[in-house]
Amino acid sequence: MLKKSMDTLERIKPEAYAQKYQNGTILILDNIRSAFNVGSIFRTADCFGIYKIFLCGITCKTDNRELQKTALGAEISVPSEYFSTTIEAIQSIQNEYHIIAVEQTNQSKMLDEYVFDHPKNIALVFGNEVDGVDLEVLKRVDEVLEIPQIGSKHSLNVANSSSIVIWDMFNKRK
Amino acid sequence: MLKKSMDTLERIKPEAYAQKYQNGTILILDNIRSAFNVGSIFRTADCFGIYKIFLCGITCKTDNRELQKTALGAEISVPSEYFSTTIEAIQSIQNEYHIIAVEQTNQSKMLDEYVFDHPKNIALVFGNEVDGVDLEVLKRVDEVLEIPQIGSKHSLNVANSSSIVIWDMFNKRK
Repeated sequence: MLKKSMDTLERIKPEAYAQKYQNGTILILDNIRSAFNVGSIFRTADCFGIYKIFLCGITCKTDNRELQKTALGAEISVPSEYFSTTIEAIQSIQNEYHIIAVEQTNQSKMLDEYVFDHPKNIALVFGNEVDGVDLEVLKRVDEVLEIPQIGSKHSLNVANSSSIVIWDMFNKRK
Repeated sequence: MLKKSMDTLERIKPEAYAQKYQNGTILILDNIRSAFNVGSIFRTADCFGIYKIFLCGITCKTDNRELQKTALGAEISVPSEYFSTTIEAIQSIQNEYHIIAVEQTNQSKMLDEYVFDHPKNIALVFGNEVDGVDLEVLKRVDEVLEIPQIGSKHSLNVANSSSIVIWDMFNKRK
């Protein structure tokens, strides 16, 4: 058995990434505290052709060294933009995008049953490690999506939950 | 909109976890370097009812403080066992389990097309952050599974790739 090299994997060039995936899915990071989580989300975003990441509030920017250590260059291939509040980020794309927050609420739809068939492009909102997606942000989104779970803990780590939702959407829409 | 509390989520009690999920899926961690990644994998494992985690080689044990910071108690609910080598861990369950490594090889099957319908229980092997699953380990597994990707980077972070595979299996088998 042979492991695949970068040549065998036939990945696209980082400099071709932004153009190839322009106007696709956007991720909105609502006050994510850990730069490691943000970097990790960039890396996943690159793997599945996410168009752009909105970094909001206390979410670090791409010049952060810890972010760079986990993003491994994905912070260069995947475009990003900083907004001082998550609400401003949402308002900037509200007309063009169908905005879905990932959160456990009394109005959530379950990911396993969810079909990503909205005619608009999709933006996914992921929230703070402790507080989740802010309630004022939740009021402004079109839908809320929840990952069904059967264990003893409250929730998943935000980088892991974003990987699950991004994969699930990628797989269902391909 | 209201966020769900632990009461509303109706999670099982941590002390009931091990019995409820006994003899289900096992994760085999092949020399995972980062205690944060290991802790994060414990947290995901709890969410989807993984039976047990085998910690192999340089993978840290559950008394590690960094692991505990990211596992948030899942290292107590989810049973685990330490093996000095990954090959010993595999040998200990080879007769009872169908063992699948997650790696990019010339013999990998793609996750999106993969059906988890093997009559035996499943063990998933995840590898080191830099080197992936060891070649000697790959020789001893039943199948290799690859997460299809369309970006510019080589691969995903191991905690994120394990979240994706665990979710995908949970969803397909439910």
